[in-house]
Amino acid sequence: MESPLVLGTLSFFIAVIWGQPLIALLRHHRIGKQVRMEGPDSHQEKTGTPTMGGLLFVVPVLLITGALNLANLLGFTLIGKSTLLLFFCLAAHATLGAVDDWLGLRGRGKGKGMSARMKSGFQFVFAAIIVGILYFGPPDLYYVGVPGITQWVPIGWLFIPAGIFIIIGFSNAVNLTDGLDSLAGSISSISFASYGLIAHMQGQTYLAAFCFTVVGALFAFLWFNAHPAQIFMGDTGSLALGATLALVALMTGQWLLLPVVGFVFVAETVSVLLQVASAKFSRRYLGRDIRMFKMTPIHHHFELMGWSETQVKERFWIVGVLSGMLGVALALWNG
Amino acid sequence: MESPLVLGTLSFFIAVIWGQPLIALLRHHRIGKQVRMEGPDSHQEKTGTPTMGGLLFVVPVLLITGALNLANLLGFTLIGKSTLLLFFCLAAHATLGAVDDWLGLRGRGKGKGMSARMKSGFQFVFAAIIVGILYFGPPDLYYVGVPGITQWVPIGWLFIPAGIFIIIGFSNAVNLTDGLDSLAGSISSISFASYGLIAHMQGQTYLAAFCFTVVGALFAFLWFNAHPAQIFMGDTGSLALGATLALVALMTGQWLLLPVVGFVFVAETVSVLLQVASAKFSRRYLGRDIRMFKMTPIHHHFELMGWSETQVKERFWIVGVLSGMLGVALALWNG
Repeated sequence: MESPLVLGTLSFFIAVIWGQPLIALLRHHRIGKQVRMEGPDSHQEKTGTPTMGGLLFVVPVLLITGALNLANLLGFTLIGKSTLLLFFCLAAHATLGAVDDWLGLRGRGKGKGMSARMKSGFQFVFAAIIVGILYFGPPDLYYVGVPGITQWVPIGWLFIPAGIFIIIGFSNAVNLTDGLDSLAGSISSISFASYGLIAHMQGQTYLAAFCFTVVGALFAFLWFNAHPAQIFMGDTGSLALGATLALVALMTGQWLLLPVVGFVFVAETVSVLLQVASAKFSRRYLGRDIRMFKMTPIHHHFELMGWSETQVKERFWIVGVLSGMLGVALALWNG
Repeated sequence: MESPLVLGTLSFFIAVIWGQPLIALLRHHRIGKQVRMEGPDSHQEKTGTPTMGGLLFVVPVLLITGALNLANLLGFTLIGKSTLLLFFCLAAHATLGAVDDWLGLRGRGKGKGMSARMKSGFQFVFAAIIVGILYFGPPDLYYVGVPGITQWVPIGWLFIPAGIFIIIGFSNAVNLTDGLDSLAGSISSISFASYGLIAHMQGQTYLAAFCFTVVGALFAFLWFNAHPAQIFMGDTGSLALGATLALVALMTGQWLLLPVVGFVFVAETVSVLLQVASAKFSRRYLGRDIRMFKMTPIHHHFELMGWSETQVKERFWIVGVLSGMLGVALALWNG
């Protein structure tokens, strides 16, 4: 446990120190968020806060992971196995998110970002490459852990569509969740810590070390993201976190538990899907516009029910910690 | 790990269900907090929120711990060893705190509570009984774990003053920390979880189970304590949490790590002591009133520096999690 904790602490301090100049840089270049018009009115005050803050945690994690991989290549075995795939996943999705954030601010259709089609296309290509390497490459993954069953269950080529689905799904889910100060960052850190524990118990120390490196850097981000936020993670952060969390889950084999560990992310996404579906079907079959929630993603629903932003956030954290614990317990049950 | 997690979840749900009627009951009897005049002006709005909310977590923990002890007595070995001493510690300090809270609301000197002398007297008696049982009774504790040293270090009768000091000190420290919504509750839950992990790694399952029972109940309290708080823990909660945390630390033998695991509590207390000392000495030797902090306990200092209440709280949590992790790592180092 010591090396993951030490790396997590190191990454926290690197990221905290990197935070101040990054915020100054983003402010200098006026990388300020345009808050979407659909949010509750009270959120309008957030316009202007620097976005692309995902760089605050992505850069330190890439630095540390890159350095450890380099040390491995040079023959110093610090952590053991390679984490190059995680490096690629984080870097690719952060770049995609950064381009999207940038276009949203400076592109022609201001405030709109990349076209949904192009974004999805890139997400699909990245996910396919990653899952292809897992399946055909040296990790040779084609199985899944099922709670209560001691042995890994081989699922053959079904691993490929399942893997692609959860990588794309989770990068979008974290993106949707990122609507309240500290929410996506804290739930992500709980999820990475849970999978870090699972990886640690499996003896996959290099994977646990990577997870806690992310957790440490996320803590530094949360330092600056506390309400009123000095910085937002943007798509740069949320796409990278979601995709990488899914990859970590795939690498532990315990990806069936992802909807448990990342319950809040799934609930946010499902709320949007249900909202769209209920509006569509009620309009078609009842001629009226019936919506299940006051507003989605579901954190807005609770705000409009009268919970304060802090209450929504802290209660979601409690749910997040409980579901993370449940996920770890279920992974233990698997053996 | 499963039984502690299961108990923690159980205790969360019991406490969450118990929360609503408790709040209604406290409101009905007008057990509303009189906010101390020394706090920043922005805190005046909190006057009237029900206090004595420690009952929200103390009662479920006592119920579960009592039931498990009873089952043990009857011959069903559910958790193994007795946790009666923890039961006593929690109950005694919660009662003392409740009397103090009650007198503060209904006593003659309204808003003042029990006299400091009487409160300290009871704290001393309780601490002496508890440490006496640890030292002379069946636990037979007279040693301390020192990070980096594999064997326990016997310290003989010095265990008695040390134990009394940390029990009284921590019950006061948590009390001082309890000045922002969610602060004392969350830092306590991090500390109990850290010692729960330490106890678990030592194979003291019954102690780990107790710790996670407290953590679960605290999560339920935090649900209602999120800003704007529907309930405050009061002395009922803070004295009980502090004393019991110290007792848990003593029972793991790793109580030298208490200032690490509970760093936030110690920092809050030390800030008050330094403030008083600096004012006293500067007045005596310089003829001027020099204070080290804008206001103590130190969370007020940061508020007056311009941090929002949320920023103070969330940054203190980050510090709390990092120090909890460091404490667990140091306990592992001990072997």
